[in-house]
Amino acid sequence: MMPTATCEQFLGIDLGGTKILAIVGTAGGLEMGESLVPTSAEGGPEAVVATMGRAARKAVRRAGLDLRDVTAVGVGAAGGIDPAHGIVDYSPNLPGWHHVPLGELLAKELLLPVFVSNDANMAALGEQRYGAGRGIRHLLFVTVSTGIGGAIVVNGRLYEGHHGYAGEIGHISMQPDGPYGKSRTAGALEAIASGTALAEEARRRLALREPSLLRRRRRVTAEAVFEALQQGDALARSVVDRGIRYLGAGLASMVNVVDPEMLIIGGGLSNQWAAYIEPAVDIMRDQAFADLGKRVRVTPAALGVKAGARGAIALAYDALHPEPAD
Amino acid sequence: MMPTATCEQFLGIDLGGTKILAIVGTAGGLEMGESLVPTSAEGGPEAVVATMGRAARKAVRRAGLDLRDVTAVGVGAAGGIDPAHGIVDYSPNLPGWHHVPLGELLAKELLLPVFVSNDANMAALGEQRYGAGRGIRHLLFVTVSTGIGGAIVVNGRLYEGHHGYAGEIGHISMQPDGPYGKSRTAGALEAIASGTALAEEARRRLALREPSLLRRRRRVTAEAVFEALQQGDALARSVVDRGIRYLGAGLASMVNVVDPEMLIIGGGLSNQWAAYIEPAVDIMRDQAFADLGKRVRVTPAALGVKAGARGAIALAYDALHPEPAD
Repeated sequence: MMPTATCEQFLGIDLGGTKILAIVGTAGGLEMGESLVPTSAEGGPEAVVATMGRAARKAVRRAGLDLRDVTAVGVGAAGGIDPAHGIVDYSPNLPGWHHVPLGELLAKELLLPVFVSNDANMAALGEQRYGAGRGIRHLLFVTVSTGIGGAIVVNGRLYEGHHGYAGEIGHISMQPDGPYGKSRTAGALEAIASGTALAEEARRRLALREPSLLRRRRRVTAEAVFEALQQGDALARSVVDRGIRYLGAGLASMVNVVDPEMLIIGGGLSNQWAAYIEPAVDIMRDQAFADLGKRVRVTPAALGVKAGARGAIALAYDALHPEPAD
Repeated sequence: MMPTATCEQFLGIDLGGTKILAIVGTAGGLEMGESLVPTSAEGGPEAVVATMGRAARKAVRRAGLDLRDVTAVGVGAAGGIDPAHGIVDYSPNLPGWHHVPLGELLAKELLLPVFVSNDANMAALGEQRYGAGRGIRHLLFVTVSTGIGGAIVVNGRLYEGHHGYAGEIGHISMQPDGPYGKSRTAGALEAIASGTALAEEARRRLALREPSLLRRRRRVTAEAVFEALQQGDALARSVVDRGIRYLGAGLASMVNVVDPEMLIIGGGLSNQWAAYIEPAVDIMRDQAFADLGKRVRVTPAALGVKAGARGAIALAYDALHPEPAD
């Protein structure tokens, strides 16, 4: 599965809301140089693209290379991406961006071919190629943090769907009469089981005057809920249990549909592995179709904040090498 | 996408609970002969395999061919199938079958290579190759009848998942505190929105003494519920509306995860297109992520009862031709 050619270097760029991470490396997994540059969406697409260019040049320089030594560039960005045309349809991190041809703009800036995809897709591909999912052909990646995202790898390749939006696991309906959150889908998983949703549910119950250690908090965050849970707080216990029940059922649903060899779970809440992820995985193992739940391997993401940029390297490689290297 | 070679003939066999349909044809779509033979699971695997052999020989004879003119055989069967080994793990239609090596048994009977898959998978592949989904690369197939099944085609090929169980759309959780039906998954879509579930819900509400035309019925089936609906029955209206709401949310979930170019809906309840499927599709169009719901093409299945056997022809072809023919 692992490409072995080291004669080509690629640039992987993770375009976040406040930072841009650029990594130069080979498809085989060698990291040659990186740079992390702060960004702001305020200057509009031109300013952001110029900052991406700076980050790219810095990473390339640190690798002892020149932009001409780079074969192609991959970019991961949050939001709705049209990967076929490199267009950011919209992005929660980049307010005001609508149908921005990011691929085209960055290609002009760097004079290199540029391929763009969704950040969860990039993290999944990074994990599959260089992280927890090495050598896995069919992989389901779920990220649980302020939202819930996901991505699917089929036959060792990212499956982006027809419009580039596949894997939106946070937007499966867990309750057709339930809350929408930021989703169009009633009772969306991320409106019930994300960090944001846990914090909101805790605040809602505090407003109902339930007793809780969380009353002492100036701001009730998901982190605060898990701290209160550690201290035996009943409200936190009940809020987290509800999240676990829904996350578990959502994971079971996805295992039933994707039937992956491995399920990788990342995102901020994967730090609460024992308190939140593991009990949800237990429910998944119990509820998934036939014995799929027992058979699927479950593991935390391994690449941390680098997953997106490293996946973007793999994206650029794959775009130029249509045949899976296995 | 459509294979053009006509120098090879394949046998596609649909193993149902009461009937076996065998079709001889080319991968390009030519049907050359068929036979429909009654079956019963009572004699055990040996008897069923012998009956499948009879059906196969009859179809081949009607095509003016001999078994030696057939390149390979595809089989679709209901239940949990391990396609890599041609094993029927279990089947609702074949009580008592556990880990039956159907592929091996039939290969001995016919002296031909045999490939086995799930019946919903076969119907999806049939529709994608010869029916409503011709030329579609990424396709979601959903069958709504006594249960709810599904299958996914990726890049023009059936996506079976790691254990052969992918696409179990009837077993996504719509309500983590809800009923299980025949599923392991709490609030499984098929336990709420299948024909069986609609009839059960109507019976449950009749038992609560709600007034309804359905009281006159000796047996309350899904068909009876839709007949009462046509006559303006309020209980039927409410039962069907609930099914529509859940089916619509379930379809939205699947579109969010698979992002298909086309959604094909088959199965017995697709006959209730205007009364049941179309309003659920409207909900899907409204609730799917971003504008996926507006963009996905939705169409009824076109091949009817032949879909499974014809998909099995494509399965046998694909097994011997690993490269997509596009």
